[in-house]
Amino acid sequence: MAFSLHPKLAEDSLPVAELALCDLLLMNDRRFPWCILVPRIENLRELHAVPADRQAVLYEEIGATSRALERVAGAEKINVAALGNIVAQLHIHVIARFSHDAAWPAPVWGIGSAEPYAESCERAQTLIAALVAELTHHLR
Amino acid sequence: MAFSLHPKLAEDSLPVAELALCDLLLMNDRRFPWCILVPRIENLRELHAVPADRQAVLYEEIGATSRALERVAGAEKINVAALGNIVAQLHIHVIARFSHDAAWPAPVWGIGSAEPYAESCERAQTLIAALVAELTHHLR
Repeated sequence: MAFSLHPKLAEDSLPVAELALCDLLLMNDRRFPWCILVPRIENLRELHAVPADRQAVLYEEIGATSRALERVAGAEKINVAALGNIVAQLHIHVIARFSHDAAWPAPVWGIGSAEPYAESCERAQTLIAALVAELTHHLR
Repeated sequence: MAFSLHPKLAEDSLPVAELALCDLLLMNDRRFPWCILVPRIENLRELHAVPADRQAVLYEEIGATSRALERVAGAEKINVAALGNIVAQLHIHVIARFSHDAAWPAPVWGIGSAEPYAESCERAQTLIAALVAELTHHLR
């Protein structure tokens, strides 16, 4: 069975790009510049279960996404996490944090409710375009 | 200036072992089998700032700690995160999660208060000894 993105991840996010290993998504929550990386490997649940020959590229994509968010969003801090207690499909959160954001200094999960970007929102489109420009060497 | 463990991390945890790159700690919270990895590199704040020549060993130690917790604690899910919004020194959480634990399915941070292991607690000592035995090939 081929890889397919978990419907809950697709529903909560906007697509950004296909990187060499991962689908890159932007969480549809304008409170936080918040990316999700999903390795296109079927039935993958745990970070430590990523096949040995794909680990380096995964960590490269996590690092590149972190640096891109730092530059594009001017993040004060990057939060990286693989949780997956609710959606089992392995996905890695990479989140730009600010000392004035809605959850600081707590983690973002479970704080209030997502505030989706407006339909065809220029802010989301600008953020996505800037991320793609930063990640050009990592595109599939 | 040499590396020294942030006092807040030391205060909240029990020492487990020195791995090749990281100090391995056990959070002093018996609600969760919860490890912390701290790379012994001074002034390190972000995961993506780990020097290129130390990244592979860091990810190896994260993976080995995850597998060790899975085996030793019988974890249903492993949560991995580098947050650092409060304690800036880079530290990576590796947490054994269970569908019956005190925070499930939410992340563990900000849920209730830590419940320290009792003084000279056999449970903590047994867990630490089992982790060290699993990680014998990664010791400094």
